[in-house]
Amino acid sequence: MRLAVIGLGTMGAPMARHLLAAGHEVTVHNRTREREEPLAEAGAARAETPAAAAANAEAVLTCVSDTPDLEQIILGPDGVAEGLVSGGLVIDCSTVSPAATAEIAAKLRERGIGMVDAPVSGGSEGAEKGTLTIFCGGEQGDVERAGPILDAIGSKITHLGPSGAGQVAKAVNQVMIAGTYATVGEGIALAQAAGLPLEKLVEALSGGAAASWVLQNRSANMISNTYPLGFKVALHRKDLGIALDEAARAGVPMDVAALVATQEDGLVDSGFGDEDVSAVARIPKRTD
Amino acid sequence: MRLAVIGLGTMGAPMARHLLAAGHEVTVHNRTREREEPLAEAGAARAETPAAAAANAEAVLTCVSDTPDLEQIILGPDGVAEGLVSGGLVIDCSTVSPAATAEIAAKLRERGIGMVDAPVSGGSEGAEKGTLTIFCGGEQGDVERAGPILDAIGSKITHLGPSGAGQVAKAVNQVMIAGTYATVGEGIALAQAAGLPLEKLVEALSGGAAASWVLQNRSANMISNTYPLGFKVALHRKDLGIALDEAARAGVPMDVAALVATQEDGLVDSGFGDEDVSAVARIPKRTD
Repeated sequence: MRLAVIGLGTMGAPMARHLLAAGHEVTVHNRTREREEPLAEAGAARAETPAAAAANAEAVLTCVSDTPDLEQIILGPDGVAEGLVSGGLVIDCSTVSPAATAEIAAKLRERGIGMVDAPVSGGSEGAEKGTLTIFCGGEQGDVERAGPILDAIGSKITHLGPSGAGQVAKAVNQVMIAGTYATVGEGIALAQAAGLPLEKLVEALSGGAAASWVLQNRSANMISNTYPLGFKVALHRKDLGIALDEAARAGVPMDVAALVATQEDGLVDSGFGDEDVSAVARIPKRTD
Repeated sequence: MRLAVIGLGTMGAPMARHLLAAGHEVTVHNRTREREEPLAEAGAARAETPAAAAANAEAVLTCVSDTPDLEQIILGPDGVAEGLVSGGLVIDCSTVSPAATAEIAAKLRERGIGMVDAPVSGGSEGAEKGTLTIFCGGEQGDVERAGPILDAIGSKITHLGPSGAGQVAKAVNQVMIAGTYATVGEGIALAQAAGLPLEKLVEALSGGAAASWVLQNRSANMISNTYPLGFKVALHRKDLGIALDEAARAGVPMDVAALVATQEDGLVDSGFGDEDVSAVARIPKRTD
């Protein structure tokens, strides 16, 4: 297929590479244009604007940092909507507002363009390996058309409802991990203060109700008090903001997620925003 | 071995049954004496007091609800310390204060009695099946002597340090699950308000960073908004109190665990204290 990929960050660049490797004809665009170069070397065409990238494409995959960025590259001047033909498809892998997603999808539909929200989980490792978990929202036909494209970048693809449903699912994911990161961090800090043998403790805890991906994969960061990426605190905080907005709209109080968001604000203010989100363990350790 | 088991609740009764099945000579005692009857039918002797139960034993296994109960049955009038011979061993499977445990162990040591704190994780199912995770604290020799007894009731036994270390590990376990229960509940409530297909969502979330024992085993309670036991909210709240006391002593701020403790207080006040701890999902659902 003729595809465009817009947004070549930590997640978007490996996605573009997987699409090239799967035999698609790929045009790339990124706001910071140098990021297009490695993809061009791998066989992609380059375009000066989102509209120009979309002009040659049957489907456009977007992967940007936040809701305003997405609105800009889709609906702004020289945006995707100006370039993409009627009958085309937008697949958005960004993590953005569910409500804004539904609005963008409605505006694209007026132009005959389909949209699938397809936010991902699995981090940079998952993007590199093409094994992302993908939460999809959109009309059944559009999600089916997106299928072969998503298969090239992910391994677990679930259609959860209409436009925005994928974003709600991603928000739920970010809420669920918030409390786990926070209290795994608190538990490790308590154990450390008490002088327990920490690796042995984690092994013992992993057999029971405290078992989690976070305990298994991120407690070592907390034990050594070093937080290499991973997934940035600042991005998780952004995602929690989306989730809290959505929850407020739905009348769902999420006091624990809100508290973790406040803690992450403190980490960002203290200069730890670029560390992995397991850095929430700094708070009970008082090392900020 | 000649053993005594004191405290025949949800956890203690199946422990006594496993010890009988393993061929030990078991004397039982419970404050509410009727609870001794099924064990007597299974071959146990009965004793009128903790001291009397201990008088015939080489080791005494205790499993009671809280720190004051433990102090009472060990050091109080007609307590274990009055009956057990010098050279005997106390194995305490209750979840109680680490600091109080260290004090009780020191007082027993003055009488030549060893003590192992051996709080368990795995719930009533684990106790019934004899597959509990056991966190041990105490002197190496005492933990080794306790080994064959603990092998009859648990499948994962870890020695984590001196008297009280097992209790700290259990406290850490209870802290770690606190945040997970809370935000899995918040996430399910958000997803439900948004009308997502919940079983499909849980399946999608289970492949990534949100994976946890809680999501896997307790999200169904949250989805149906019914919370059969399991492990009581009121007991988890009691355990969080122990953990928060220990953290305060150690100078470790645990704001997220403290918030969950407050939420659980609200549930207990509203009459939900006897439900499974997954009932924290009532809070974002506002069904209390």
